[in-house]
Amino acid sequence: MSLQLQCDVNALNAAYAAALDEKRFDDWLEFFTVDAMYKVQARENFDRGLPLALIALESKAMMKDRVYGVTNTIFHGPYYMRHIIGPVRLMGNDEDLIRSEASYAVFRTKPGSVSEVYNVGRYIDTLVRTQAGLKISSRLCVYDSEMVLNSLIYPI
Amino acid sequence: MSLQLQCDVNALNAAYAAALDEKRFDDWLEFFTVDAMYKVQARENFDRGLPLALIALESKAMMKDRVYGVTNTIFHGPYYMRHIIGPVRLMGNDEDLIRSEASYAVFRTKPGSVSEVYNVGRYIDTLVRTQAGLKISSRLCVYDSEMVLNSLIYPI
Amino acid sequence: MSLQLQCDVNALNAAYAAALDEKRFDDWLEFFTVDAMYKVQARENFDRGLPLALIALESKAMMKDRVYGVTNTIFHGPYYMRHIIGPVRLMGNDEDLIRSEASYAVFRTKPGSVSEVYNVGRYIDTLVRTQAGLKISSRLCVYDSEMVLNSLIYPI
Repeated sequence: MSLQLQCDVNALNAAYAAALDEKRFDDWLEFFTVDAMYKVQARENFDRGLPLALIALESKAMMKDRVYGVTNTIFHGPYYMRHIIGPVRLMGNDEDLIRSEASYAVFRTKPGSVSEVYNVGRYIDTLVRTQAGLKISSRLCVYDSEMVLNSLIYPI
Repeated sequence: MSLQLQCDVNALNAAYAAALDEKRFDDWLEFFTVDAMYKVQARENFDRGLPLALIALESKAMMKDRVYGVTNTIFHGPYYMRHIIGPVRLMGNDEDLIRSEASYAVFRTKPGSVSEVYNVGRYIDTLVRTQAGLKISSRLCVYDSEMVLNSLIYPI
Repeated sequence: MSLQLQCDVNALNAAYAAALDEKRFDDWLEFFTVDAMYKVQARENFDRGLPLALIALESKAMMKDRVYGVTNTIFHGPYYMRHIIGPVRLMGNDEDLIRSEASYAVFRTKPGSVSEVYNVGRYIDTLVRTQAGLKISSRLCVYDSEMVLNSLIYPI
């Protein structure tokens, strides 16, 4: 039922954001199916149909690698993230495949600094129902922010 | 039912924001009834009961004019908008007329720049049920942001 | 039922934010139970289990005092607040005690200025059902923003 689905996807997004903001990256992985796609792409490229993406991970194994890199090997100044995700927009769905979108704003706080707007854009998602609940089979983060503050280290 | 209505208005707001952020201004028009009112007003004036508004469109025909102006005649530097709309607040409703409010934050991104807080405030709405679903018969955007960055070109 | 609860908590958060943003501080008090706890704490201290908090009010009587202070005795430059609260995350609940979290962003606008990111973080809540509806028995605001712009005057 659409009402239930709308609430479920909003709850999924809230939990997803919490995992990232609390740096529980192993939990973040569990929002995806095994063969899921995760991409972070500039709006300019997306709108023109260009393939270049800032991050493009084509399976959960690649995501795991990324998490390892982020938590163990990349040297970077630490920062907090805070996601605020807007209400979900269901784009039509059948029983097996759900397409949805939601706008997000991510704020970054560096130690001793004020919080700043870090990355804003929208999630373009494909979700599937599994025995373990809704899972993301594809999440494309299309960001407006052309100048990414420093480099983007953590997933969005 | 209130639960259904709450979810419907949240979904309406999500779709409304997406239309503006994707610059689908003709779609934006379709969220309104034919004789709808659309106004953008500073909080200071709203709180004092003063009539002055930055934008005041008193019918869909006037909105159409505005869209034409925005897309065809006004010369302005391009920018992206991104709306994040908070959860809706139903203010009491009967079968025919729904009053609701929601807070919004709009972020602006100019080419090659970081995203910035552009306009924050709240929507004060009157909605009606039509055969084509919920429509806005009045949307008053009361913004906190006293200094509007450059001019406000697109609707909020 | 979980669907109903999720919608109810989102509605509670929307109403809570509206009370603060409209400076209806007496209404703000009514979201809490008589013996409620309200705390605003830096994430750094929260994560380390340190007790230091920017604001710690341990009953509604203390909150009333704070409201009196804010509205009658503290000299400060006026500013507007605007809360955008993300979708709620229910953390498990039984009939009597509901635990939930939600991320928030608060924007501040000073007279004649642009809006700025003021305080971002998350609410960690305990809610109870009362005859007058859902009430907050504990709200802990854990903020990322280490450098609080000026002093924090109003509740978050």
